[in-house]
Order: sequence, then structure tokens, then C-alpha cells
Amino acid sequence: MRAKPPTSGAIRQADESFRSPKAELDLRRERDWRTKMNAVTPTVTAGPLPASRKIYLAGTAFPDIRVPMRAITVHPTAGEPDVIVYDPSGPYTDSQIETDIAKGLPRIRESWIAARGDTEFYEGRAVQPEDNGNLPAEKLTPEFPVRNVPRRATGGRAVTQYEYARAGIVTAEMEFVAIRENLGRAEAKRALERDGEPHSAAIPDFITPEWVRDEVASGRAIIPANINHPEVEPMAIGRNFLVKINANIGNSAVTSSMAEEVEKMVWAIRWGADTVMDLSTGRNIHNIRDWIIRNAPVPIGTVPIYQALEKVNGIAEDLTWEVFRDTLIEQAEQGVDYFTIHAGVRLSHIPLTVDRTTGIVSRGGSIMAKWCLHHHRESFLYEHFEEIADICRAYDVSFSMGDGLRPGSIADANDAAQFAELDTLGELTQIAWAKGCQVMIEGPGHVPMHKVKENVDRQMRVCGEAPFYTLGPLVTDIAPGYDHITSGIGAAMIGWFGTAMLCYVTPKEHLGLPDRDDVKVGVVTYKIAAHAADLAKGHPAAQLRDDALSRARFEFRWEDQFNLSLDPETARSFHDQTLPKEAHKVAHFCSMCGPKFCSMKISHDIRAEAQKEGMEKMAQKYREGGGLYMPAGDVPAE
Amino acid sequence: MRAKPPTSGAIRQADESFRSPKAELDLRRERDWRTKMNAVTPTVTAGPLPASRKIYLAGTAFPDIRVPMRAITVHPTAGEPDVIVYDPSGPYTDSQIETDIAKGLPRIRESWIAARGDTEFYEGRAVQPEDNGNLPAEKLTPEFPVRNVPRRATGGRAVTQYEYARAGIVTAEMEFVAIRENLGRAEAKRALERDGEPHSAAIPDFITPEWVRDEVASGRAIIPANINHPEVEPMAIGRNFLVKINANIGNSAVTSSMAEEVEKMVWAIRWGADTVMDLSTGRNIHNIRDWIIRNAPVPIGTVPIYQALEKVNGIAEDLTWEVFRDTLIEQAEQGVDYFTIHAGVRLSHIPLTVDRTTGIVSRGGSIMAKWCLHHHRESFLYEHFEEIADICRAYDVSFSMGDGLRPGSIADANDAAQFAELDTLGELTQIAWAKGCQVMIEGPGHVPMHKVKENVDRQMRVCGEAPFYTLGPLVTDIAPGYDHITSGIGAAMIGWFGTAMLCYVTPKEHLGLPDRDDVKVGVVTYKIAAHAADLAKGHPAAQLRDDALSRARFEFRWEDQFNLSLDPETARSFHDQTLPKEAHKVAHFCSMCGPKFCSMKISHDIRAEAQKEGMEKMAQKYREGGGLYMPAGDVPAE
Repeated sequence: MRAKPPTSGAIRQADESFRSPKAELDLRRERDWRTKMNAVTPTVTAGPLPASRKIYLAGTAFPDIRVPMRAITVHPTAGEPDVIVYDPSGPYTDSQIETDIAKGLPRIRESWIAARGDTEFYEGRAVQPEDNGNLPAEKLTPEFPVRNVPRRATGGRAVTQYEYARAGIVTAEMEFVAIRENLGRAEAKRALERDGEPHSAAIPDFITPEWVRDEVASGRAIIPANINHPEVEPMAIGRNFLVKINANIGNSAVTSSMAEEVEKMVWAIRWGADTVMDLSTGRNIHNIRDWIIRNAPVPIGTVPIYQALEKVNGIAEDLTWEVFRDTLIEQAEQGVDYFTIHAGVRLSHIPLTVDRTTGIVSRGGSIMAKWCLHHHRESFLYEHFEEIADICRAYDVSFSMGDGLRPGSIADANDAAQFAELDTLGELTQIAWAKGCQVMIEGPGHVPMHKVKENVDRQMRVCGEAPFYTLGPLVTDIAPGYDHITSGIGAAMIGWFGTAMLCYVTPKEHLGLPDRDDVKVGVVTYKIAAHAADLAKGHPAAQLRDDALSRARFEFRWEDQFNLSLDPETARSFHDQTLPKEAHKVAHFCSMCGPKFCSMKISHDIRAEAQKEGMEKMAQKYREGGGLYMPAGDVPAE
Repeated sequence: MRAKPPTSGAIRQADESFRSPKAELDLRRERDWRTKMNAVTPTVTAGPLPASRKIYLAGTAFPDIRVPMRAITVHPTAGEPDVIVYDPSGPYTDSQIETDIAKGLPRIRESWIAARGDTEFYEGRAVQPEDNGNLPAEKLTPEFPVRNVPRRATGGRAVTQYEYARAGIVTAEMEFVAIRENLGRAEAKRALERDGEPHSAAIPDFITPEWVRDEVASGRAIIPANINHPEVEPMAIGRNFLVKINANIGNSAVTSSMAEEVEKMVWAIRWGADTVMDLSTGRNIHNIRDWIIRNAPVPIGTVPIYQALEKVNGIAEDLTWEVFRDTLIEQAEQGVDYFTIHAGVRLSHIPLTVDRTTGIVSRGGSIMAKWCLHHHRESFLYEHFEEIADICRAYDVSFSMGDGLRPGSIADANDAAQFAELDTLGELTQIAWAKGCQVMIEGPGHVPMHKVKENVDRQMRVCGEAPFYTLGPLVTDIAPGYDHITSGIGAAMIGWFGTAMLCYVTPKEHLGLPDRDDVKVGVVTYKIAAHAADLAKGHPAAQLRDDALSRARFEFRWEDQFNLSLDPETARSFHDQTLPKEAHKVAHFCSMCGPKFCSMKISHDIRAEAQKEGMEKMAQKYREGGGLYMPAGDVPAE
């Protein structure tokens, strides 16, 4: 980092003095590694988006916090202020900061966590050969050069944002979130009337840290932020906040490497992913995860059962609570921010899936179902749920209650298996809350439009309004290759109805592994869905960007149209395919109609004429109820 | 045509004998043209989609009609019947027919129209130089080789489907539509329970010709079918029918040619476009349109004001009723099936647009606004609306009432200008109906999700339930480059709420002219939206294809998954990017999870085990209310 914030730098020094017994070793490790990896250290995509710069806002209660936003500058002729947008992309898009993924991101939360005085560093679990799939040294992804010495709660405390919130404590994370969510809202209050159908949401005109605390305390929102992921820029997931999106990455048994995965994470957040799930299932899981987390400014989620299954060579029947528990601790120490736990797949639910069109489509769900059936026993996740919660509360790992029985087809939507599991998730939510843990609930999947709303309403009722986090849903099964779109339709709707976070789907869904372009298309599609939901809910600041872009469109400010869009590169390249010349970027027409037919140009002529002729006065007259429906030929007198 | 249906062939003979005075000339023309054009005769994309063959069903009242459908064959191991899907692609996808665009399609409706005995052939309007932009001969697109001798109603009759329907006459077109819309529905009745939220729609279990007649007579549906477009395969637009989609093509002042436009039309219907609008604005409009119509098995719509404006050199103020009227007759004689008429843009509405964020964004709307304002007069379209209807009734050109004041941004959605125009369209609908014309109403545009439903409800109320035909709507303005998606979301929703036809938007919207790939992506996206709407409305046959594809997915029938999808080429290519080998097409896993983790494989294991262990019995027990929520560890006894 070129511009490391002094505070977190100082704190890190303190950490390093704590870990002095290992400092020597770590330094040697890093040197060795650098020699070995010099050629292969991956680079990631960095640099600001067009016409954009990073700005940081400071806190009040916590003056040290620096809340990042992206300011998009429009052409001076517009005479308009910068458009401020929410920005999960981290330091990678800050032209003032040089990132180095072998060092990791600044540990901005280190001081906040330390100041609470309720955690301790400890040696932590030693990395085991099976954590990386028992690979021989030469095939092993190198360890991350700087070892993360883990923290945990002292004295069995819950060190969670939920527990602080319930105790009336406003944390730095909460103030960070409040500032972050208020993007431009102070100005918006003047300009925008509230407009929207919020359903059960209640978004205030202006968000205060105390209001954030209240949302977290009520369980309606979570701030996923493991104490071992101090690099995270805190964000909230809840239906009274901006709708968030998640992007999945992860290597598989079939393909992909560490370098690819880190870049996929950086790439996904560049385009707007608010959290990233690492769904790796192949070898090197542990080490790749370390690289991802140390470089992630967004919360990282995992499905620990995937790694647990690797540890028992892929044989579901051989899973045990002990292996699973060990995996949770391994990942909690690394800094995973939320765990998908499929504890709702109970033995008694499995028969409900037998007549389904597509059975069980969740990987975690099917693993647990197979285990339950083989042993003819209740799920060990369900039986040990309180112990899982004990681990989560010691690190502030949020629960993402997995929907192992989600429907995998339109035919299976909203069926008995799905809702039986949801009931169990509601029961487990209460247990997790009693343990002081943060909880969100995963949802489907494949659902036709007319059954979408029932999913939200029922989840809210059954799970005490814990945030809902859905995969799509896809509103039809007939378009493999376009499932970002089939699911984007469902995602926009379910977001409007109150879902807090939308898990993206890429064009490769059901067909193959997403590449870089697929990740981008998936993220942009879900930013569309989330933003459409914010607009429909009447989020007081959401329409500012739409309006800025629409004014740019009306005024033929082509560069501003590109820069204000979710994907400036694509917008520009599409324009240039028809009209490549630079002169066309200032042309008062476009290729669709050509200069003679341009409706916007004519609209400008009309407006000019109106001004000349006192049309404003005339308009006023009509607005006041003047004869809108004169008979044909009855020309109003000026 | 290799396999011309004998009936229509015979009828054509009859026509040729009628036009014998010109036959000599036509033949010579064709010969000359062939010599000149030999090298440039465009070819179009032909041949069936994978695993598909064309089938034709005969009528009962009209045994000669051959209603086309596409039968998709699944792998024999499935033991399932062919999946029958709606198919607007015409003879181009029939492997038994060799098409030749210099000859045009078979004139299947010729005998039906002739048999009604209420029309006459006549010489028709001579083509004028200004019809093609006053181009010199060497720049002129050649005329279509076979001149279409136009028909018109005799004795001032209305020869419209609406007028027949109101008179209690079931036409061949109506029986054609009834058979076409019933796709697989007879079988579906057994298999599917009705499921959906139809809003105001009322879709019967089985469609009869008499029911179609009633829908047309009530004005709730139209069958756009100009008597001069006998090549058209009749289709219905109405909210109790399958939701339809329209694709726009058209050359512009900036680019594109006849060959491209014909291929775009064929390409668009190949992927599922139900109607095609020719929005050409450049030169050669007349001749290109001839080529398109003679080769179009789907209804063709136009916006006649575009060509009228060309005739007055692009100067809106110079437009006159006479030029416009002449253009209507020119296009009606060619066989245009529906006209967009912006007669709702009244002088008194224009002031309502002055304070808008994006003014008037409809080309037709802005042209008329400019005209009205310049002359300070009521719109000549509004003043001459009855005369326009007199033309339409003589050819059965359907009205598509243009929404010239549709919102061009989220900020302008559902505003006073938009709804003032809608009120006028309602008033004009009554006039058109009184003249015996078929009518549909165009709608927006840009609308946030929470304002979508009001558009449908209001349109239905104000316009007497005439079919609604919307452009998207886009649910946000911030994603140029992805506006097929922003609008696909709105389109799916508005389709569910009762919109009868959705006008596609391509990824190039707002940025440039769509190419071949953009047209395909736009059409497929809108097929998704329309199908999602059919599912949500509870169309009794819609889910058959979803279920077939989902079963293929569950059973790892990869080829069937590709073949049953809306775009088999893309699905296959995405799969093959990760797993290219042929062996992987029968693999019981995919690249996302690899063989070890496959949830579907595990589901099959579970199902097998369930059968072994009598799980069905167990499932039954649970379904009957057995202890779904046993305490943890309480294993059900077998």
C-alpha cells in the first residue's frame, strides 16, 4: 500500500510485536515465497472507472473511519455536481493506492476490534495437510506470505455486531454503514419526493448510526464482519438498506487456480458485488481462501461442508461433526464472514423431495440428505446447531441459513419440502439469536413470478424478519445460456418485495464455469435487479443516478451517459460500433434515427419554441385544469 | 418453394389469370431483374433448429388450413413424447421446403380472402419516385420481381377480422389461431393443474374457433392480417392468448440494406418474434418493404409517418394530410398488417411535456408535436382519424395506437402527458371500433417496477380492454448496454399483468443499431419475458416445456437440455467451453461441481435408496401429517 492509513498501520505494528515469536519465521517464509513465486504472483485489475474518483467520508463518533464512495464527474456544461455512488470495490479502484496482493489490504478494523477489549490473539489451529487436499508440496498453492494470527472472544463472550447492538453499543462498523448508506441523501432530501411501494420496508430519509444499531439489534439487518477479517469495509444486509448482491467464485475439481480466483474476486467487486462467496471444492482450498480473504474489502462467505467433504475424500457418509467443527474453526480463524449452514435439511424432510421433478439441487443439501439417509439419523448440523452458534459468536461469523431443499425447477417451487425446511430455519434463527449471532436466510432458486412474493412474506413471518438472501429466482427453466436474465427478473421482483441480498447467476448457470466476462455480466445484471428494487421500494437516493443519466441522454452528453452507466466500457463500445468517430460523441443525434429524425433534438426545438412563445404559461394553464380535451380543431388562443 | 401446398398454388394460378394483362410485363421484369441481381440475391438463414421438425395441423371448419408447430424430439431413453412449441418462423425452418426470397412465400390466405367475396383486385397506386427517396435508378433497390396486385374491400365494406367476428362469422384465420394457441393443450389438461395469478386474464382450458371469434369481437384480441399480405400465418394478440413479442428491424439514414433487412426479419422470427416492425427511415423504403412483406410469414407493422416525413425531405412542418394519406394507401396496398398512428399527440398535450426530464422520446410523437406547434393547430392525425380508419377497414390494417408521449426516463413515468395521451387513445379506440377496425394500444417505455401495473390497469380501463403492446418497459435508466435486461424485467411483469405483446429491446438500445447477434439476444430475452408471463398467468400449456427441460436436467440428458432451450446453440457452446468432449454430453455430472459433488447425482442415489427402503411409504406417512418436527435424534422407525 502506498497510502496506508496511519491508524491501521500503527495497529498492525502492535500485532506484529504480539506475534514476534513467529516474526522471524514469517519473514523467512515471505522471502522464500517471493523467490519461488516471483513469476507467478498474480496481478489484479486496478485503477478507477472512467470519470470516477474515490472519496472518503469521516465518521463523527469514530472520526478515524474513512467511508469510501465513488464520485462520477459529469461534463462542466451540465453544471451538475458529481454523482456519488455506493462503491464496494475497495482500494483497487483508488488511483492513490498501489495494492500488492502478496501483502493484503490495510487492516482498517484492527483498531476498532482491539479497542473493544473483548478478544485475544491466540496461536490458532495448525494447518493440516487435508486442509489443502493432501497435496504434495510441489502442487501446493503457496501460503499467503503474512500469517494471520487469529483472534477470538475472551471468556465465552459473543463479539458480534448483534450482541453489541442489543447492548445499546453503536460500533464503528455501524457508523461506517450509516455513512455508507446515506450516499447523497442529504441533498436528495431537498430534490426528491419519496416515491415507491416499499411493501414491508421502512427506509428512513436519513440513516443514523443509532438507527443502524436498532436494525441490527432487531435482527432485521446484519453486518457480516469476522473479527479475523479486519480488512473488510463494513456493509449491511437488510431490507431497509440498499439491496445488495453477492457474486460466487471458487475453483472446482475440474478447473481454475488461486490467481484466477483472487482476480475474480477483485473483478466482481469492481463491477459492484457487495459480498463474495468462495465456493471452492477442489484442492488447495485453505491456501486459496487465505489469499482471497487477505485481499478482500468485502465480506467473504463460504459453505464449510464443501471443505469438510474434501477432508473425507468426498464420501458424504464419512462426514462427522468433529470434521465439520474443525473446518468451522479453521475458516473462522481465517476470517470468513458468513457460513452457509444447511442445518434445515432434516431427516424427516427428505421424503418430501422424492416426488420432485428435480429432487435436491443444493450441493450442501444433497450431501446432508445423503448423510442422514445413510445413517438414518438426524442431521449432525441440526443436532449440533448450538455448538455451531458457539463458534460463530466467538468470531462474529454470521449465519447464512442454507436452503438445501430449495426448488430446482418451476415444477418444485414453493413445495412442501421447501417450506418444511424454511420452518426449521425459522426455529434455528431463534437459537442463533439467543446465542448472540447474526443471521440471514437463504432462499430459492426457481420460482414462477406469481409465487415469488409468497417466498418473501413467508420467510419474513417464519424467520422473524431476519434478512432474506435469494439465488435469483429464475422465473422459467427454458433458457439455459440466459439464466442471468431469467433470474434477474425474479431477483428484481424479490428484491422489491423485501429481499436484502441477491445472489448473482451468470450466463453459464446450469452449463459451465463462469469466466471473467460471465462474472461481469452476472454482476451487472444483478446490479440492475438490485437498483430496480431500490427504485421501486422508494429508496430516497436511488433515482439520483437515473436522473443524471437521463439528463445526459436528453442533452446528448454521450460521455456522461457512458460514465454514469453500470458498465461504461460496454456502453461506449456499443456506441462506437455504429458511430466510431470522436466527433460523434458530441453529435446531437445517434445512429438509431440519424440527424433528421431525432426525437430528442425535436424536443429541444419544442422547448426552445415554448420558451419563445410563453409555453410555460400555457402549460401552467393546462395544469390548472384548462381545457385538455378541446374538440379537434379548437386551437387554444395565445 | 419445393413443396407448395396445392390449394394456395391453385389460387395463385387464378390470380395470375386475373392479372394476365400485366403478366407479360411481370415476367420480363423478373427476367431482367434476375440477370441484374444474380450475384446479389440475398440468402437467408434456413433449416430447422436442432432436434426439431415442423408439423402442421389441419382445421375442421377449414380443412385446408395447415397450422405450423415445432416438435422437439427428446432422447428415446426419456420415454417422453415430442415437446410441441409455438413456431412463428415460417417455412424457413421446414426442411421439406426450399424457400426463394425472390419468389416470396406461399400465399396461404389467398383462397380464404377470395372466398369471402367482399374484395376486389384493382390497379393500385403507381410507385412514385419519392416512395424510395427520389433515388436515381442505379442506387435503387430493385423492385420485388413479382408485382403484388392489390385487393381492397368492395362497396365500402369493412373486411376486418373484427367486423366478421361481430357478425358472428368464424374465419379461417380464427380457426388457424385457435389451433395454433392450443399447442399440446389437450394432453396438458390431464397432466397439469391450473396454477397462476391471471389478474384480469381468463384463459380457457381449451381454445375453440368460436372463442377466438368472441375475443376478437369484444376487441380484447386482434388478428393482424392485411388482405394484401396473404403470406401471413394468422396469429392473435390479446391477453387471453400466449403473450407475443415483436422485433424491430429497419434501415436508417446511417446504415443497412435490403439484404440485411430481409435476413434480420427471417432471423428474428427464427428465434421467436411473432411480429416484425419495419422502422426504416432511409432511402429505398418502398422497395425494401416489398421484399420484407412478400417473405414474411408474420404480421408486419410500420410507422407510416416515417415514410411520409421522407417524402417531405425530413421537414416535419411540411407534412400534410394528403402526403400521409397517400402513404397509408401505398403501405396498405403493399400488405402492411398494422400501422402505428400517433394520433394521441394533441396540441393541448404538448405543454405537459415541457418540464419533463427527457421531453418527447418517440420519433413519431416528436414529429407530430413539432408539426402541431409550428402550425399551432390540432394534429392532422387526430382530425382525420375517421378517414384513416376508413382506409384501415378497406384492407384490414390493424391500428397500433402510438404512444408518442411515452416516458423516456424513470423520472417521467406515469406522468400527466403520458396519461393525457392515453385518454385520447381511448377515445380514438371507440372511433376505430365503430369503423370496424382492429385496435391495439402502444405503451411505455421507462417505468420503475412499482408503477408498471398501473399502466396496464389504466390502459385496460381507458381503452376498453383493447390489447396492450408495450416497449419493455425499462425499470431503470442506468444500464445502457444492458437495456434488453432492464426492459426484460419490466416486460415480464407487464406481460403477467395483462399486456398482450411485448416489443423487444436489444442490447444496443440508446447506443447504436442492433446487428444480427443483438437481434437474437433481444428476441430470446423477450421470449423469456413472454414465457415467464405465460407461466405466471397460469397458461395451461406453458409449463410443459419447463418441465420437459427440468426432467432432462435431472436425468443428465444434456442434448435434450440444449434442444429444449430457447437458444440451443448458445446453451451447447457454453457447456462445451468447459467440457468439450462428446463423452461429457452423457456424463452424469457437469463442470460446476464435478463428479464428486453433484447434487443431482446424490438425489438419484437418494431416490434409489428410497425405493429400496420403502421411502415412498415413509413419505406418505409424513405427508399425512406424521411428525415432521421430531426432536433431534428421534429417528423414525421403519
